[in-house]
Amino acid sequence: MTEASGIVTLLTDFGLEQPFVGVMKGVMSALDASLRFVDLAHALPAHDVEQGAFWLAQAAPWFPPGTTHLCVVDPGVGTARRALVAEAGRQFFVGPDNGILSRALETGAARVFSAPVPPGASNTFHGRDVFAPLAAALASGRARPEALGAAIDDYVRLPSPAREPVNGEVVGQVVCVDRFGNLLSDVRVPTGWRPRGWVRVGGELRLPLVANYLAGGAEPAALVNSWGVVELFVARGRASELLGLSVGASVALEVTR
Amino acid sequence: MTEASGIVTLLTDFGLEQPFVGVMKGVMSALDASLRFVDLAHALPAHDVEQGAFWLAQAAPWFPPGTTHLCVVDPGVGTARRALVAEAGRQFFVGPDNGILSRALETGAARVFSAPVPPGASNTFHGRDVFAPLAAALASGRARPEALGAAIDDYVRLPSPAREPVNGEVVGQVVCVDRFGNLLSDVRVPTGWRPRGWVRVGGELRLPLVANYLAGGAEPAALVNSWGVVELFVARGRASELLGLSVGASVALEVTR
Amino acid sequence: MTEASGIVTLLTDFGLEQPFVGVMKGVMSALDASLRFVDLAHALPAHDVEQGAFWLAQAAPWFPPGTTHLCVVDPGVGTARRALVAEAGRQFFVGPDNGILSRALETGAARVFSAPVPPGASNTFHGRDVFAPLAAALASGRARPEALGAAIDDYVRLPSPAREPVNGEVVGQVVCVDRFGNLLSDVRVPTGWRPRGWVRVGGELRLPLVANYLAGGAEPAALVNSWGVVELFVARGRASELLGLSVGASVALEVTR
Repeated sequence: MTEASGIVTLLTDFGLEQPFVGVMKGVMSALDASLRFVDLAHALPAHDVEQGAFWLAQAAPWFPPGTTHLCVVDPGVGTARRALVAEAGRQFFVGPDNGILSRALETGAARVFSAPVPPGASNTFHGRDVFAPLAAALASGRARPEALGAAIDDYVRLPSPAREPVNGEVVGQVVCVDRFGNLLSDVRVPTGWRPRGWVRVGGELRLPLVANYLAGGAEPAALVNSWGVVELFVARGRASELLGLSVGASVALEVTR
Repeated sequence: MTEASGIVTLLTDFGLEQPFVGVMKGVMSALDASLRFVDLAHALPAHDVEQGAFWLAQAAPWFPPGTTHLCVVDPGVGTARRALVAEAGRQFFVGPDNGILSRALETGAARVFSAPVPPGASNTFHGRDVFAPLAAALASGRARPEALGAAIDDYVRLPSPAREPVNGEVVGQVVCVDRFGNLLSDVRVPTGWRPRGWVRVGGELRLPLVANYLAGGAEPAALVNSWGVVELFVARGRASELLGLSVGASVALEVTR
Repeated sequence: MTEASGIVTLLTDFGLEQPFVGVMKGVMSALDASLRFVDLAHALPAHDVEQGAFWLAQAAPWFPPGTTHLCVVDPGVGTARRALVAEAGRQFFVGPDNGILSRALETGAARVFSAPVPPGASNTFHGRDVFAPLAAALASGRARPEALGAAIDDYVRLPSPAREPVNGEVVGQVVCVDRFGNLLSDVRVPTGWRPRGWVRVGGELRLPLVANYLAGGAEPAALVNSWGVVELFVARGRASELLGLSVGASVALEVTR
């Protein structure tokens, strides 16, 4: 049985300009003043469930067992979409049932529960009224996931990125432009294959696959980054602007056995 | 007597691009290394005391008793404006005497004290040299508010928003544009009244009052949000741009008995 | 011997849009769940080692003895540049050997060590794979700096700003534009000298040196700010835009004995 670590991570698209995230921490602190909070990111593009799911899956494995991940990118707040509590990979997850948790839940044997909305919850801020109390209950060790909702298996899953090559290429897309203008994709090197040294982006352009950010010289290039996915960059420049590409652009990694 | 919880919230217009906020936490940690910090917001519009006061009053009640709220939006730093320490609603408040604390202090029987500026304080960063030490003294439980200054009653109060309807309307204004482009006002439903279903904005336009963000369809609409105030929005769009409205725009809620 | 306080500050140019900083905290929490984190700044201009070094030196002295400062502005990640661990002024410092630590290390008798890159580290995210584990080892008290690397003395030092007047002026440059548009320089009043009341900026323009932000009236002015350096500002305006100046602009303080 996974024991709660008292650490809660937070991943939202609320921004930090108003105290939405701070108030969620207030609600959790009122339930257990010893909880410790780590912000993952709060400036995700508004309503970008896909990018939230990507980053949650990348970030969660770096945290200790028993961490609770509270994730609220929630365009459907106030509608009938369900609230989820889950356990997977010896960690806990809380968020709306819109796919945001689904990539993280792929990585372990997941147990997923649908939690009721408490009476008196607002229609516009479930982060505060629904998800923060659930996260605090888990993170404080006061409740097990199965005590917080009904077991379900039909939670919303985002389509999985391609894992197997077709015609010598693994094809995916850009999922994130970071603050350096680097373009991160969902393309990984499949087990049993190795890169041929080229990445095809946006259909036509071919970029060399190099080892680090300075090995590309002054030209745009690609590498397999620290998250294990193909990333497009240009040393000390903004690849997104130089290549004219953004989230959704096609990325194809050439591979061989 | 309110016992300090060891939690300090911070609300400033300092931004996070330079380590102003971090240094305030350093000063407090040097006085008591066990303090825990929760950021409310640091990217308030520069010098916007009104918006700071609004959000402090919204956020504070969600924190546990004994929380210390450290609020620095301080265009008059280095002048003769006073430094305040207060207790209200079983919580502590620290900030300049320019109205930033005043909306939070309306909500409970407030005791307010004027604290001296310590010798050697800079003229330009009282957040570090005046307010952080006061907050740490309160939050650590080492000092009671009355030990930190002289009791006063004439602290600066911002004008209160209208609470009673006139000609069937409660009239107020937009106080905040959030990152989704939603427009938050200071208009509340008065006790004993109920909404008629329409909000008049910017003088002429009437928007329907709906239950949640998806109930407005593709058109701009209004709702009473999770803070109890009227909010203007458009589903998956930016109401501020669509309506051409910003902070200060008129918002009138039609009400009936 | 400096005892670790369990506090880790973080200073990076990673931004907060993606969970790079959060993952570094996850790595450290996995090594010691009791560590406490204070963000200094994460939106430094990308790759601006000079500004990072400036702010680290300003911020560190405000933290308690035993604090560990983790600083990652690292355009050379994945190349042969060394990873540093240091102790100075009864605090610990971790970061790449590109000068980012050097201004903070000027302030005390520094002991500096070059730490090996652990096997399996990525080529693109040493913040996570190299520096966070080093910081956690120091901050948790599990390792002394000398246990983490080989003593060195030839670490990269940024050129020091001028400290002595020439022809009655101390000459330096703008190192930071803050969110209010104020321009912070690296010019200090030398020991044994005092200001004559004027600052020459950008070559020709002379600004009066005043006592606080409101003493300048509506005109641009200068003051010696809370960090002890000359700062250019205009009350309730943006000096950077009004003066047309940015990082690198010349700033000369007129001084006399």
